[in-house]
Amino acid sequence: MKSRIQRIFAHAPEGLESIVLFNAEAPHLDHAFFYATDLVQGGLFEGGMAVLRNDGSCTILTNELEEQSARRAKEAEVLVFHNRQERNELLSKAIGGASKVGFNARETVYSNVVGLREALPGAEWVDVGSAVMQARMVKDRIEVARIRKAARIASKVADKIPQMLAEGMTESQLSAEMNAAMQRGGAAGPSFTTIVAFGENAAEPHYAPQQRKLQKNDYVLCDFGAQFDLYASDITRTYVFGKASAKQREVYDIVRRAQQVGFDLCKAGASCKEVHDKVAEVIDRTKYKGRFIHSTGHSLGLQVHDGGRIATTSDQTLEAGMVFTVEPGIYVPGWGGVRIEDDVLITKNGCEQLTTSTRDLLEVALPKPMPKAKPAKAQRPTKRKR
Amino acid sequence: MKSRIQRIFAHAPEGLESIVLFNAEAPHLDHAFFYATDLVQGGLFEGGMAVLRNDGSCTILTNELEEQSARRAKEAEVLVFHNRQERNELLSKAIGGASKVGFNARETVYSNVVGLREALPGAEWVDVGSAVMQARMVKDRIEVARIRKAARIASKVADKIPQMLAEGMTESQLSAEMNAAMQRGGAAGPSFTTIVAFGENAAEPHYAPQQRKLQKNDYVLCDFGAQFDLYASDITRTYVFGKASAKQREVYDIVRRAQQVGFDLCKAGASCKEVHDKVAEVIDRTKYKGRFIHSTGHSLGLQVHDGGRIATTSDQTLEAGMVFTVEPGIYVPGWGGVRIEDDVLITKNGCEQLTTSTRDLLEVALPKPMPKAKPAKAQRPTKRKR
Repeated sequence: MKSRIQRIFAHAPEGLESIVLFNAEAPHLDHAFFYATDLVQGGLFEGGMAVLRNDGSCTILTNELEEQSARRAKEAEVLVFHNRQERNELLSKAIGGASKVGFNARETVYSNVVGLREALPGAEWVDVGSAVMQARMVKDRIEVARIRKAARIASKVADKIPQMLAEGMTESQLSAEMNAAMQRGGAAGPSFTTIVAFGENAAEPHYAPQQRKLQKNDYVLCDFGAQFDLYASDITRTYVFGKASAKQREVYDIVRRAQQVGFDLCKAGASCKEVHDKVAEVIDRTKYKGRFIHSTGHSLGLQVHDGGRIATTSDQTLEAGMVFTVEPGIYVPGWGGVRIEDDVLITKNGCEQLTTSTRDLLEVALPKPMPKAKPAKAQRPTKRKR
Repeated sequence: MKSRIQRIFAHAPEGLESIVLFNAEAPHLDHAFFYATDLVQGGLFEGGMAVLRNDGSCTILTNELEEQSARRAKEAEVLVFHNRQERNELLSKAIGGASKVGFNARETVYSNVVGLREALPGAEWVDVGSAVMQARMVKDRIEVARIRKAARIASKVADKIPQMLAEGMTESQLSAEMNAAMQRGGAAGPSFTTIVAFGENAAEPHYAPQQRKLQKNDYVLCDFGAQFDLYASDITRTYVFGKASAKQREVYDIVRRAQQVGFDLCKAGASCKEVHDKVAEVIDRTKYKGRFIHSTGHSLGLQVHDGGRIATTSDQTLEAGMVFTVEPGIYVPGWGGVRIEDDVLITKNGCEQLTTSTRDLLEVALPKPMPKAKPAKAQRPTKRKR
């Protein structure tokens, strides 16, 4: 992808002629490898490399196991190696005597950098991690289409969750059904481990689904995303299984107001720090002050956390074409929590919400007690419609 | 986990007092962090650290977002930081003036190593990647139980695949059903992206499922695994959708014989190189010489590729407690391929197969043509039993 490679070089130190992206064993693959080559239709390329040049050209070095996959890359030369020595010789040839070579320190394991230094002992190595991140933050048309599709798949699943809920089901069971629904909807899989937290577990932002069973009046917090052509979506919805208590509704409404402030502020030119501070202020002006314990959002793309953050420590300015999550939350240990998360595409004058499920508080109607004459059916958990 | 930490130090250079494991953003997490802390029940710990000491003790540094998750670690001290400076101060305290500090170069991104050097400018940094790998290769009782469970879940799904097949279904659809079945069976999810390859696509070992539709007499190659408490299984079965042709059966039988040679040779004391060479010989003595284009197997654990390999380039010797895949294959570009893969626990006198689905060639019976009077039903793909 000539245009993406040129974007990276535009952010890199002047005079740099080549950049080497070097994958280790999965999961330690460099997302920049997939960004630059656009090899999103399969292949791990463990131990593989991409050599990028400042004219936008690219050479892919792969073992023979993935030669067929690598040849799907448009506009790239593909060279096949059978062992480390061959790879180093091909690398040296592909670099073509450039004395200054870039590498991505944020996604290359240390031992691979040692390997590069041994392969090209004469080269001066320059970290281009920041350039790679800046290039990847602003999405091109193809990337936006993929994230949009991933967001649509996740939104449709969010719409269906109320109908999946049944008293006594476990967090793990719900997450299994959500993942299956995403894949049936066209996702390659979840973009990260699906979070399902019932009741008091909703107080833990990075909770993983366990065997906790769904009870009447529980919060149901679901944080999940679809992966489509390697691109991620990321959405959170919090439901109430039954009628919301006054406190459950109060917490929900505050989070929703905070998120709306985020939507209103997100546009090209806005400061990420300011967006976060204003969102946090909504929560910190209530009695839940201090209960919003993470940043407002993160950049989304090939990684779920794809670079920038909407946080008080951020010096990032939003630009048109960036995709961020907006996800305030309130967490009350031992009681529960609410998070509402959507993905937005930053535009010149505002932002477009890519995830489209309703943000109204959904209270999932409990089934009416069955007549006593039919005890067998009453005991079986059934799917409910709201 | 005192015993695991002591195992790492037993393989590390003498005199080393501490080791720092430092996670970056997911997926660039250090599996050794999860090995040493046994934090397998949730939590990403991005930006988190584990400081291991040669007395087997451990200090976990985490942000407040994951404090609750971190406190699940038995025998470990948990310290909470709110920003980078605080983390560096806590790190310095936890290291306690040790002058030589270990780090895992194979799973720490370069920029994090730079961060460590800045945090502890006086320390000498020693790569303990090889010690970590050697320690992790021999599984303890708890780890074997998790892999056994992950293998059981995947085996049950392999048994059900013939009943999932229907003419016209896509590779993606089958992979969705397989993933759902694994999660319903107790898996946290797939341990890697499920490979489903129909017909000629089975010739590509690292293929990702696409929209290719299942046709009569296709090979159906399924390579997948379950993740259970962060531990992986990895199994491949190749079916024929219909009656196998003579060539399909011939290729299958050769691969099966090669795998049996692998099973027969795997035991404590065996050389990985020798096992691979003998397995490859079975294939290379046939007309499919040169069509087995990868190594015979890999170590399995927290990573799907967890360190050692059964390969001609390996100098590893098998030890009791190691878990390896045995997975020969034959790949004929443009025609198709067969791989059969099982997970084995190395024992003193042989190996135990943890994946237990049949390795007989399964020819999936096609449905009989429906009577013409009922065209509507005949058009609908139905599930078939063998």
